[in-house]
Amino acid sequence: MKETAAERDEEDIAAERLTAVLAAVEARDAAALDVLLDPLHAADIADLLEQISPSERADLLALWHGGIDGDVLSEIDESIREQVIESLPDEVVAEAVRELDTDDVVDILEDLDEPAQEKILDALEDADRVAVEQALAYPEYSAGRLMQREVVVAPEHWKVGEAIDFLRGAEWLPDQFYHVILTDPRMKPVGYVTLGRILSAARETPLKEIVEDSFRTVKATDEEANVAYIFNQYHLISCPVVDENGRLVGVITIDDAMNVLDEEHEEDMLRLAGVGDESSISDGPVATARQRLPWLVVNLFTASLSALVIGQFEATIAQIVVLAALMPIVASTGGIAGTQSLAVAVRALATRDLTRSNAARVVRRELFAGILNGVGLAAILGLAGTLIFGDYHIGVVLGMAMIVNQIVAALGGVVVPLTLERFGLDPALASGTFVTTLTDVMGFFAFLGLATVILL
Amino acid sequence: MKETAAERDEEDIAAERLTAVLAAVEARDAAALDVLLDPLHAADIADLLEQISPSERADLLALWHGGIDGDVLSEIDESIREQVIESLPDEVVAEAVRELDTDDVVDILEDLDEPAQEKILDALEDADRVAVEQALAYPEYSAGRLMQREVVVAPEHWKVGEAIDFLRGAEWLPDQFYHVILTDPRMKPVGYVTLGRILSAARETPLKEIVEDSFRTVKATDEEANVAYIFNQYHLISCPVVDENGRLVGVITIDDAMNVLDEEHEEDMLRLAGVGDESSISDGPVATARQRLPWLVVNLFTASLSALVIGQFEATIAQIVVLAALMPIVASTGGIAGTQSLAVAVRALATRDLTRSNAARVVRRELFAGILNGVGLAAILGLAGTLIFGDYHIGVVLGMAMIVNQIVAALGGVVVPLTLERFGLDPALASGTFVTTLTDVMGFFAFLGLATVILL
Repeated sequence: MKETAAERDEEDIAAERLTAVLAAVEARDAAALDVLLDPLHAADIADLLEQISPSERADLLALWHGGIDGDVLSEIDESIREQVIESLPDEVVAEAVRELDTDDVVDILEDLDEPAQEKILDALEDADRVAVEQALAYPEYSAGRLMQREVVVAPEHWKVGEAIDFLRGAEWLPDQFYHVILTDPRMKPVGYVTLGRILSAARETPLKEIVEDSFRTVKATDEEANVAYIFNQYHLISCPVVDENGRLVGVITIDDAMNVLDEEHEEDMLRLAGVGDESSISDGPVATARQRLPWLVVNLFTASLSALVIGQFEATIAQIVVLAALMPIVASTGGIAGTQSLAVAVRALATRDLTRSNAARVVRRELFAGILNGVGLAAILGLAGTLIFGDYHIGVVLGMAMIVNQIVAALGGVVVPLTLERFGLDPALASGTFVTTLTDVMGFFAFLGLATVILL
Repeated sequence: MKETAAERDEEDIAAERLTAVLAAVEARDAAALDVLLDPLHAADIADLLEQISPSERADLLALWHGGIDGDVLSEIDESIREQVIESLPDEVVAEAVRELDTDDVVDILEDLDEPAQEKILDALEDADRVAVEQALAYPEYSAGRLMQREVVVAPEHWKVGEAIDFLRGAEWLPDQFYHVILTDPRMKPVGYVTLGRILSAARETPLKEIVEDSFRTVKATDEEANVAYIFNQYHLISCPVVDENGRLVGVITIDDAMNVLDEEHEEDMLRLAGVGDESSISDGPVATARQRLPWLVVNLFTASLSALVIGQFEATIAQIVVLAALMPIVASTGGIAGTQSLAVAVRALATRDLTRSNAARVVRRELFAGILNGVGLAAILGLAGTLIFGDYHIGVVLGMAMIVNQIVAALGGVVVPLTLERFGLDPALASGTFVTTLTDVMGFFAFLGLATVILL
């Protein structure tokens, strides 16, 4: 994303505001904090809390805890939410969560430890607590956790006029709703009508005649990633959620689906790079180091494979020491090619553009692309090697090794994630480590092996 | 994203359908194709067209061109859209684009070559053509290209009853709209009201009293990435678009913003891996190879830097050949650490969680995390080296080089994207190549340099 001038201006304003906020905290000036923070959207207050250090955050909250409401708690990143909730007086937390919809309370609760969860559940009114506990009974990352239980329904045989009269007479309607869901007598959803169409149709029009083509339902036990995919694929605005008997239990709206889509992307990007997907820019150095260490240790072992391979050719290197200098070129260019192929494959798997139906064609495509680039790079590197060392044998070794490793890289980049997926694992999960290990090992083996055969 | 059983079932069904479709194409059985494809959503037909090879696609379109409507053209990936449009008879294209909203026509047009653009513009009715040409006058990737021009407005002084009467009496309303936008006499938007609230409020309530807090506008010249950010940050459903004088010119709805967000993610992921962001799973091998070659060639040169560094230590390697086998361990573990740090930083820049306000804190955080993991990995590797070679000097060299390179990696992963952004470039743009070059060069230099000093 390239920055625009407007965006830079916005960033200047935000940076100045942050400086002013920290100055007010330092001066223990609660009134100045009010002036600075009150006009902000909850999402911007949450961002500001995420951008400062833990000790600055603690000072700010001690001074300004009255300003933290349910919306801010809802917006705040889960990595610091626990710290924020623990630092707030119980009555502030209680008031904050009471004003939230139950789906937002669920979202806050699921990342907290038991004691913090209890603190919030105790603060809720009885009906809300039951609703929240029912939602928590659904599996983590399921549609049941994501949905709001407040739905607007109409019997399928109603006419537009009846729906309008019902809506205008309703004592309470959800804050955000875009459709009236039609249900049969057993509460199974059979279609939905947009509010715009209800407003513009004649009173005697049966609702059934103006339902949207886009109607579909999801099960409460469906994974949220699946739900986000359906919203994005079919351009849904809201989607009814049904239980195992097909009865309506809630509705998911597009803003929640957009949020899930965004988190799925984050997960893909971080996992591809071998970082725990719960990592955040607000984490301290120790948490950061701990999240990253596991794959670094794995890499320590996989990198030792390269060392073992090279060790087999010590006699060759001892005779022609320049090989040691040249060997990383082939390995590293293979690593880049593998990463390229991998990124395209992981993305295509996430958007379901790469499926078992076209996997064979894509693998073939990667093979040919690998051969083409391998030959191209071999020509450049081979020529350079020949000219620099005045010996075409070195050029031939470099070029041939490059072709082999480009093919391995292109194939590895697509076969590794496909294999992970076939075994029910996340295709992004540290595929980067696997693929670069593959290209390193093959790069060194091909280069030193060919050198041993051709140059000695 | 982990696959569920339900998702696998869906994939089985899709795979069987694809097989049946290809069989029908092979048998030139247009009736069978109709039975298979007619019930599908346009997005699923588009996916199917993307998953088959170019020659299968050409055969399918020749047999079934009547089935391609505006929605399918709209859904289809831009990488194959040109092929599809060119293979369709002019009258099919004309009919398809005439049924689309103007914003969808703009979306199709902007990726086409001049002759294909003309073909479509000629097919439009006069009013639509003017609207499309006006939209194309806005910069590429701007809000003006993304917006629909059909808006539902009400004067700011209206009451709910007037709005209801106006909506019920309107000859035409957009297919999808969620708000009535209030404007002042100069057509400047001053707020909006959801349809749900209009339906549930008393007729005499002034619209001004039930406007949404979330109201904000974007400029027609704002970048679409900025618009997507605003939708995601502030949970918008729709957002009015204004011209340079603040007058209402259109509205953007969340489904379009979600689409942009998705494309931005794709761009980040592919650019980070050094792949052109226009690459797609439908591309042929030649197009694929061409998209990837540029950064591979760049890497060929940057990898030569590593070779030059190693070349300086040929005398050391000649004396202790095992160093050649060990040196990739330090470089490769640094590459992984750099990629981890980079992925977190690029993601945080995209979500604006990493800004100049907290850049210094994040760089410090990375430094400490790098030191911690460097020490941890140095302990493991140093111990292993000492035990395997029975000489603690080798362990010390491995450990010290590891610490140095982990610090370089952690810092490089955050400083490289921050620097690219400071210069107004996309922070994801091939940062991967820069960072791994840095960790390779420093890894080899630190290891061989320390070995020369300590072991010789």
